[in-house]
Amino acid sequence: MSKVVCDLGVSVDGYVAGPDQSRENPLGEGGDRLHRWMFETPDENKAEIDEIVAAGAFVMGRNMFGPIRGEWDLDWRGWWGEEPPYHGPVFVLTHHPREPLPMKGGTTFTFVTDGIESALERAREAAGEGNVAIAGGASTVNQYLAAGLIDELRLHIAPVLLGAGERLFAGAPDLNLEQVSARSASLVTHIRYRIHA
Amino acid sequence: MSKVVCDLGVSVDGYVAGPDQSRENPLGEGGDRLHRWMFETPDENKAEIDEIVAAGAFVMGRNMFGPIRGEWDLDWRGWWGEEPPYHGPVFVLTHHPREPLPMKGGTTFTFVTDGIESALERAREAAGEGNVAIAGGASTVNQYLAAGLIDELRLHIAPVLLGAGERLFAGAPDLNLEQVSARSASLVTHIRYRIHA
Repeated sequence: MSKVVCDLGVSVDGYVAGPDQSRENPLGEGGDRLHRWMFETPDENKAEIDEIVAAGAFVMGRNMFGPIRGEWDLDWRGWWGEEPPYHGPVFVLTHHPREPLPMKGGTTFTFVTDGIESALERAREAAGEGNVAIAGGASTVNQYLAAGLIDELRLHIAPVLLGAGERLFAGAPDLNLEQVSARSASLVTHIRYRIHA
Repeated sequence: MSKVVCDLGVSVDGYVAGPDQSRENPLGEGGDRLHRWMFETPDENKAEIDEIVAAGAFVMGRNMFGPIRGEWDLDWRGWWGEEPPYHGPVFVLTHHPREPLPMKGGTTFTFVTDGIESALERAREAAGEGNVAIAGGASTVNQYLAAGLIDELRLHIAPVLLGAGERLFAGAPDLNLEQVSARSASLVTHIRYRIHA
Protein backbone atom coordinates (compact mmCIF):
# COMPACT_ATOMS: atom_id res chain seq x y z
CA MET A 1 0.00 0.00 0.00
CA SER A 2 1.09 3.52 -0.62
CA LYS A 3 2.87 5.12 2.37
CA VAL A 4 3.85 8.61 3.38
CA VAL A 5 7.59 8.53 3.98
CA CYS A 6 10.20 11.03 5.00
CA ASP A 7 13.94 10.76 4.38
CA LEU A 8 16.13 13.15 6.32
CA GLY A 9 19.88 13.62 6.28
CA VAL A 10 21.01 14.59 9.76
CA SER A 11 24.26 15.24 11.61
CA VAL A 12 25.29 13.28 14.71
CA ASP A 13 24.34 16.34 16.73
CA GLY A 14 20.87 16.53 15.21
CA TYR A 15 20.93 19.19 12.51
CA VAL A 16 19.41 18.90 9.04
CA ALA A 17 21.17 22.06 7.80
CA GLY A 18 24.08 24.13 9.03
CA PRO A 19 24.04 27.75 10.21
CA ASP A 20 23.86 30.80 7.92
CA GLN A 21 21.70 29.36 5.17
CA SER A 22 21.59 31.68 2.16
CA ARG A 23 20.84 31.77 -1.53
CA GLU A 24 24.49 30.94 -2.19
CA ASN A 25 24.61 28.25 0.47
CA PRO A 26 21.14 26.75 0.87
CA LEU A 27 22.26 23.96 3.23
CA GLY A 28 24.14 26.37 5.50
CA GLU A 29 27.74 26.18 6.59
CA GLY A 30 28.91 22.57 6.46
CA GLY A 31 25.47 21.33 5.44
CA ASP A 32 26.79 19.76 2.25
CA ARG A 33 28.73 17.31 4.47
CA LEU A 34 25.40 15.71 5.43
CA HIS A 35 24.98 14.42 1.90
CA ARG A 36 28.49 13.25 1.03
CA TRP A 37 27.32 9.63 1.31
CA MET A 38 24.95 10.12 -1.64
CA PHE A 39 27.48 11.72 -3.91
CA GLU A 40 30.75 10.05 -2.91
CA THR A 41 29.58 6.53 -2.10
CA PRO A 42 26.44 5.92 -4.19
CA ASP A 43 27.26 2.25 -4.80
CA GLU A 44 27.44 1.52 -1.08
CA ASN A 45 24.06 3.15 -0.58
CA LYS A 46 22.24 2.13 -3.72
CA ALA A 47 19.24 0.56 -1.95
CA GLU A 48 18.54 3.69 0.10
CA ILE A 49 19.06 6.08 -2.81
CA ASP A 50 16.83 4.01 -5.10
CA GLU A 51 14.13 4.03 -2.46
CA ILE A 52 14.28 7.83 -2.09
CA VAL A 53 14.03 8.37 -5.82
CA ALA A 54 11.25 5.80 -6.20
CA ALA A 55 8.59 7.90 -4.48
CA GLY A 56 5.60 8.56 -6.71
CA ALA A 57 5.21 12.18 -5.62
CA PHE A 58 6.91 14.70 -3.32
CA VAL A 59 5.78 17.48 -1.00
CA MET A 60 8.15 20.25 0.06
CA GLY A 61 8.06 23.53 1.92
CA ARG A 62 8.46 26.91 0.37
CA ASN A 63 12.02 27.42 1.61
CA MET A 64 13.16 24.11 0.26
CA PHE A 65 11.99 25.16 -3.18
CA GLY A 66 13.46 28.62 -3.05
CA PRO A 67 14.83 31.41 -0.90
CA ILE A 68 12.34 34.07 -2.01
CA ARG A 69 10.08 35.63 0.60
CA GLY A 70 6.83 37.33 -0.35
CA GLU A 71 5.77 37.35 -4.00
CA TRP A 72 7.36 34.89 -6.41
CA ASP A 73 10.34 35.82 -8.49
CA LEU A 74 9.17 33.98 -11.60
CA ASP A 75 12.75 33.53 -12.75
CA TRP A 76 13.33 31.26 -9.76
CA ARG A 77 13.00 27.64 -10.87
CA GLY A 78 14.28 25.83 -7.78
CA TRP A 79 17.77 25.01 -6.54
CA TRP A 80 18.36 22.08 -8.85
CA GLY A 81 18.87 23.49 -12.36
CA GLU A 82 16.70 22.62 -15.34
CA GLU A 83 16.54 18.88 -14.59
CA PRO A 84 15.75 18.39 -10.90
CA PRO A 85 16.39 14.96 -9.35
CA TYR A 86 12.71 14.28 -8.56
CA HIS A 87 11.55 13.06 -11.95
CA GLY A 88 7.94 13.28 -10.84
CA PRO A 89 5.28 15.57 -9.38
CA VAL A 90 6.44 17.89 -6.59
CA PHE A 91 3.89 19.85 -4.54
CA VAL A 92 5.30 23.04 -3.01
CA LEU A 93 3.56 24.53 0.04
CA THR A 94 3.23 28.31 -0.26
CA HIS A 95 0.93 31.23 0.48
CA HIS A 96 1.53 32.70 -2.97
CA PRO A 97 -0.18 31.21 -6.03
CA ARG A 98 1.89 30.41 -9.07
CA GLU A 99 1.29 28.46 -12.26
CA PRO A 100 2.70 24.90 -12.33
CA LEU A 101 6.29 24.74 -13.48
CA PRO A 102 7.22 21.77 -15.66
CA MET A 103 10.94 20.98 -15.76
CA LYS A 104 13.08 18.59 -17.77
CA GLY A 105 13.18 14.92 -16.80
CA GLY A 106 9.60 14.62 -15.59
CA THR A 107 9.64 16.95 -12.58
CA THR A 108 6.70 19.36 -12.31
CA PHE A 109 6.50 21.81 -9.45
CA THR A 110 2.88 22.51 -8.47
CA PHE A 111 2.22 25.27 -5.95
CA VAL A 112 -0.37 24.54 -3.29
CA THR A 113 -1.84 27.38 -1.25
CA ASP A 114 -4.49 25.60 0.81
CA GLY A 115 -2.45 23.77 3.39
CA ILE A 116 -0.58 20.60 4.17
CA GLU A 117 -3.53 18.21 4.03
CA SER A 118 -4.54 19.43 0.60
CA ALA A 119 -0.97 19.12 -0.66
CA LEU A 120 -0.77 15.57 0.69
CA GLU A 121 -4.09 14.64 -0.90
CA ARG A 122 -2.94 15.90 -4.28
CA ALA A 123 0.38 14.10 -3.90
CA ARG A 124 -1.41 10.86 -3.01
CA GLU A 125 -3.52 11.10 -6.15
CA ALA A 126 -0.49 11.85 -8.27
CA ALA A 127 1.54 9.01 -6.71
CA GLY A 128 -1.04 6.29 -7.42
CA GLU A 129 0.44 3.09 -6.03
CA GLY A 130 3.73 4.82 -5.19
CA ASN A 131 4.78 6.37 -1.91
CA VAL A 132 4.49 10.06 -1.13
CA ALA A 133 7.71 11.59 0.18
CA ILE A 134 7.73 14.58 2.49
CA ALA A 135 10.94 16.05 1.17
CA GLY A 136 11.58 18.80 3.75
CA GLY A 137 12.63 21.17 5.13
CA ALA A 138 12.48 20.54 8.84
CA SER A 139 9.52 22.83 9.56
CA THR A 140 7.43 21.15 6.88
CA VAL A 141 8.34 17.73 8.24
CA ASN A 142 7.40 18.87 11.74
CA GLN A 143 3.99 20.05 10.53
CA TYR A 144 3.28 16.66 8.97
CA LEU A 145 4.56 14.84 12.06
CA ALA A 146 2.36 16.98 14.30
CA ALA A 147 -0.65 16.14 12.14
CA GLY A 148 0.12 12.41 12.38
CA LEU A 149 0.44 12.08 8.62
CA ILE A 150 3.83 10.38 8.21
CA ASP A 151 4.02 6.58 8.23
CA GLU A 152 7.74 6.02 8.02
CA LEU A 153 10.76 8.07 8.95
CA ARG A 154 14.17 7.26 7.55
CA LEU A 155 17.11 9.02 9.12
CA HIS A 156 20.45 9.12 7.35
CA ILE A 157 22.95 10.06 10.05
CA ALA A 158 26.24 11.46 8.77
CA PRO A 159 29.37 11.26 10.97
CA VAL A 160 29.52 15.04 11.21
CA LEU A 161 28.96 17.63 13.93
CA LEU A 162 27.52 20.91 12.67
CA GLY A 163 27.23 22.63 16.04
CA ALA A 164 24.37 24.90 14.92
CA GLY A 165 21.74 25.25 12.23
CA GLU A 166 18.27 23.87 11.60
CA ARG A 167 17.31 21.31 14.23
CA LEU A 168 15.59 18.07 13.41
CA PHE A 169 12.31 17.73 15.30
CA ALA A 170 12.44 21.20 16.87
CA GLY A 171 8.92 21.53 18.24
CA ALA A 172 7.81 18.13 16.97
CA PRO A 173 5.31 16.19 19.08
CA ASP A 174 6.21 13.00 20.90
CA LEU A 175 5.94 10.07 18.51
CA ASN A 176 5.32 6.38 18.93
CA LEU A 177 8.31 5.12 16.97
CA GLU A 178 8.99 1.51 16.14
CA GLN A 179 12.54 0.89 15.10
CA VAL A 180 12.51 -1.26 11.98
CA SER A 181 16.12 -1.49 10.84
CA ALA A 182 19.53 0.13 10.84
CA ARG A 183 22.47 -0.24 8.50
CA SER A 184 25.81 1.52 8.35
CA ALA A 185 27.95 2.36 5.36
CA SER A 186 31.25 4.20 5.47
CA LEU A 187 29.78 7.71 5.48
CA VAL A 188 26.30 7.21 6.96
CA THR A 189 24.05 5.16 9.20
CA HIS A 190 20.55 4.56 7.90
CA ILE A 191 17.79 4.05 10.49
CA ARG A 192 14.18 3.32 9.62
CA TYR A 193 11.30 3.99 12.00
CA ARG A 194 7.63 3.19 11.60
CA ILE A 195 5.36 5.76 13.22
CA HIS A 196 2.33 4.37 15.03
CA ALA A 197 -0.75 6.33 15.99
CA MET B 1 45.76 -0.92 23.70
CA SER B 2 43.76 0.86 26.31
CA LYS B 3 41.28 3.36 24.86
CA VAL B 4 39.19 6.20 26.22
CA VAL B 5 35.59 5.42 25.30
CA CYS B 6 32.27 7.07 25.84
CA ASP B 7 28.87 5.38 25.72
CA LEU B 8 25.86 7.67 25.53
CA GLY B 9 22.18 6.87 25.43
CA VAL B 10 20.43 9.44 23.28
CA SER B 11 16.95 10.13 21.94
CA VAL B 12 16.20 10.40 18.22
CA ASP B 13 15.98 14.15 18.75
CA GLY B 14 19.37 14.33 20.41
CA TYR B 15 18.83 14.49 24.16
CA VAL B 16 20.75 12.51 26.78
CA ALA B 17 18.29 13.45 29.55
CA GLY B 18 14.76 14.83 29.63
CA PRO B 19 13.61 18.18 31.05
CA ASP B 20 13.14 18.93 34.75
CA GLN B 21 15.93 16.80 36.18
CA SER B 22 15.67 16.56 39.95
CA ARG B 23 16.80 14.48 42.89
CA GLU B 24 13.65 12.38 42.48
CA ASN B 25 14.03 12.13 38.72
CA PRO B 26 17.72 12.37 37.81
CA LEU B 27 17.20 11.55 34.12
CA GLY B 28 14.46 14.15 33.73
CA GLU B 29 10.97 13.64 32.38
CA GLY B 30 10.93 10.65 30.06
CA GLY B 31 14.68 10.16 30.39
CA ASP B 32 14.26 6.60 31.66
CA ARG B 33 12.89 5.70 28.22
CA LEU B 34 16.41 6.17 26.83
CA HIS B 35 17.61 3.12 28.73
CA ARG B 36 14.71 0.70 28.25
CA TRP B 37 16.86 -1.33 25.85
CA MET B 38 19.29 -2.17 28.68
CA PHE B 39 16.67 -3.24 31.17
CA GLU B 40 13.95 -4.75 28.98
CA THR B 41 16.01 -6.38 26.23
CA PRO B 42 19.40 -7.24 27.79
CA ASP B 43 19.77 -10.46 25.81
CA GLU B 44 19.40 -8.67 22.49
CA ASN B 45 22.06 -6.18 23.53
CA LYS B 46 24.46 -8.37 25.46
CA ALA B 47 27.56 -7.48 23.45
CA GLU B 48 27.08 -3.74 23.96
CA ILE B 49 26.21 -4.05 27.65
CA ASP B 50 29.19 -6.32 28.31
CA GLU B 51 31.44 -3.81 26.60
CA ILE B 52 30.14 -0.93 28.74
CA VAL B 53 30.63 -2.86 31.95
CA ALA B 54 34.07 -4.11 30.90
CA ALA B 55 35.79 -0.72 31.21
CA GLY B 56 38.68 -0.79 33.65
CA ALA B 57 37.86 2.58 35.20
CA PHE B 58 35.26 5.34 34.88
CA VAL B 59 35.22 9.14 35.01
CA MET B 60 32.05 11.07 35.73
CA GLY B 61 30.98 14.64 36.40
CA ARG B 62 29.78 15.90 39.74
CA ASN B 63 26.12 16.01 38.72
CA MET B 64 26.15 12.46 37.50
CA PHE B 65 27.33 11.36 40.92
CA GLY B 66 24.90 13.47 42.88
CA PRO B 67 22.55 16.41 42.87
CA ILE B 68 24.27 18.29 45.69
CA ARG B 69 25.67 21.76 44.96
CA GLY B 70 28.35 23.32 47.13
CA GLU B 71 29.77 21.30 50.02
CA TRP B 72 29.26 17.56 50.11
CA ASP B 73 26.38 16.00 51.95
CA LEU B 74 28.36 13.06 53.27
CA ASP B 75 25.23 10.96 53.47
CA TRP B 76 25.03 11.09 49.67
CA ARG B 77 26.51 7.90 48.24
CA GLY B 78 25.49 8.21 44.58
CA TRP B 79 22.29 7.37 42.73
CA TRP B 80 22.85 3.65 42.56
CA GLY B 81 22.34 2.25 46.05
CA GLU B 82 24.98 0.38 48.02
CA GLU B 83 26.15 -1.76 45.09
CA PRO B 84 26.63 0.50 42.04
CA PRO B 85 26.86 -1.14 38.61
CA TYR B 86 30.45 -0.02 37.96
CA HIS B 87 32.31 -2.72 39.91
CA GLY B 88 35.56 -0.78 39.58
CA PRO B 89 37.22 2.57 40.23
CA VAL B 90 35.13 5.65 39.44
CA PHE B 91 36.73 9.11 39.43
CA VAL B 92 34.30 11.93 40.13
CA LEU B 93 35.16 15.47 38.98
CA THR B 94 34.40 18.05 41.65
CA HIS B 95 35.64 21.26 43.21
CA HIS B 96 35.03 19.92 46.71
CA PRO B 97 37.44 17.41 48.28
CA ARG B 98 36.05 14.29 49.86
CA GLU B 99 37.56 11.04 51.09
CA PRO B 100 37.28 8.05 48.71
CA LEU B 101 34.04 6.15 49.09
CA PRO B 102 34.26 2.37 48.75
CA MET B 103 30.99 0.65 47.93
CA LYS B 104 29.88 -2.95 47.68
CA GLY B 105 30.77 -4.98 44.59
CA GLY B 106 34.11 -3.35 43.86
CA THR B 107 33.05 0.21 43.05
CA THR B 108 35.09 2.96 44.71
CA PHE B 109 34.24 6.60 44.13
CA THR B 110 37.36 8.77 44.22
CA PHE B 111 36.88 12.55 44.15
CA VAL B 112 39.26 14.51 41.94
CA THR B 113 39.58 18.25 42.36
CA ASP B 114 42.41 19.10 39.97
CA GLY B 115 40.72 18.85 36.60
CA ILE B 116 39.78 16.53 33.77
CA GLU B 117 43.30 15.62 32.67
CA SER B 118 44.28 14.59 36.17
CA ALA B 119 41.12 12.50 36.53
CA LEU B 120 41.84 10.79 33.23
CA GLU B 121 45.42 10.09 34.19
CA ARG B 122 44.35 8.49 37.44
CA ALA B 123 41.68 6.48 35.64
CA ARG B 124 44.24 5.26 33.08
CA GLU B 125 46.52 4.07 35.85
CA ALA B 126 43.66 2.34 37.61
CA ALA B 127 42.39 0.72 34.39
CA GLY B 128 45.71 -0.88 33.49
CA GLU B 129 45.11 -2.71 30.20
CA GLY B 130 41.40 -1.93 30.31
CA ASN B 131 39.56 0.96 28.71
CA VAL B 132 38.67 4.16 30.51
CA ALA B 133 35.00 5.12 30.12
CA ILE B 134 33.86 8.72 30.29
CA ALA B 135 30.51 7.97 31.86
CA GLY B 136 28.84 11.39 31.60
CA GLY B 137 26.98 13.63 31.95
CA ALA B 138 26.88 15.60 28.75
CA SER B 139 28.92 18.55 29.97
CA THR B 140 31.72 16.28 31.18
CA VAL B 141 31.69 14.45 27.86
CA ASN B 142 31.86 17.76 26.03
CA GLN B 143 34.88 18.85 28.07
CA TYR B 144 36.74 15.67 27.17
CA LEU B 145 35.71 15.96 23.52
CA ALA B 146 36.92 19.57 23.42
CA ALA B 147 40.26 18.49 24.86
CA GLY B 148 40.59 15.77 22.21
CA LEU B 149 40.83 13.03 24.83
CA ILE B 150 38.16 10.56 23.68
CA ASP B 151 39.08 7.81 21.21
CA GLU B 152 35.74 6.17 20.61
CA LEU B 153 32.17 7.34 20.87
CA ARG B 154 29.31 4.84 21.05
CA LEU B 155 25.84 6.23 20.66
CA HIS B 156 22.84 4.18 21.68
CA ILE B 157 19.89 5.83 19.96
CA ALA B 158 16.50 5.04 21.47
CA PRO B 159 13.34 5.37 19.33
CA VAL B 160 12.05 8.17 21.54
CA LEU B 161 11.52 11.90 21.20
CA LEU B 162 12.06 13.85 24.40
CA GLY B 163 11.45 17.33 22.99
CA ALA B 164 13.60 19.06 25.60
CA GLY B 165 16.32 18.36 28.14
CA GLU B 166 20.08 18.02 28.13
CA ARG B 167 21.47 18.16 24.60
CA LEU B 168 24.12 15.84 23.36
CA PHE B 169 27.14 17.78 22.05
CA ALA B 170 25.82 21.21 23.06
CA GLY B 171 28.90 23.37 22.62
CA ALA B 172 31.11 20.46 21.54
CA PRO B 173 33.81 21.17 18.97
CA ASP B 174 33.70 19.81 15.43
CA LEU B 175 35.09 16.28 15.41
CA ASN B 176 36.73 14.12 12.80
CA LEU B 177 34.48 11.08 13.16
CA GLU B 178 34.99 7.79 11.41
CA GLN B 179 31.93 5.63 11.42
CA VAL B 180 32.93 2.12 12.43
CA SER B 181 29.71 0.16 12.75
CA ALA B 182 25.99 0.29 13.41
CA ARG B 183 23.57 -2.33 14.61
CA SER B 184 19.90 -2.17 15.49
CA ALA B 185 17.95 -4.10 18.08
CA SER B 186 14.27 -3.72 18.79
CA LEU B 187 14.63 -0.77 21.21
CA VAL B 188 17.90 0.85 20.14
CA THR B 189 20.38 1.49 17.36
CA HIS B 190 24.04 1.27 18.36
CA ILE B 191 26.52 3.39 16.37
CA ARG B 192 30.24 3.37 16.97
CA TYR B 193 32.52 6.23 15.89
CA ARG B 194 36.28 6.48 16.09
CA ILE B 195 37.50 10.02 16.73
CA HIS B 196 40.59 11.09 14.81
CA ALA B 197 42.85 14.00 15.67
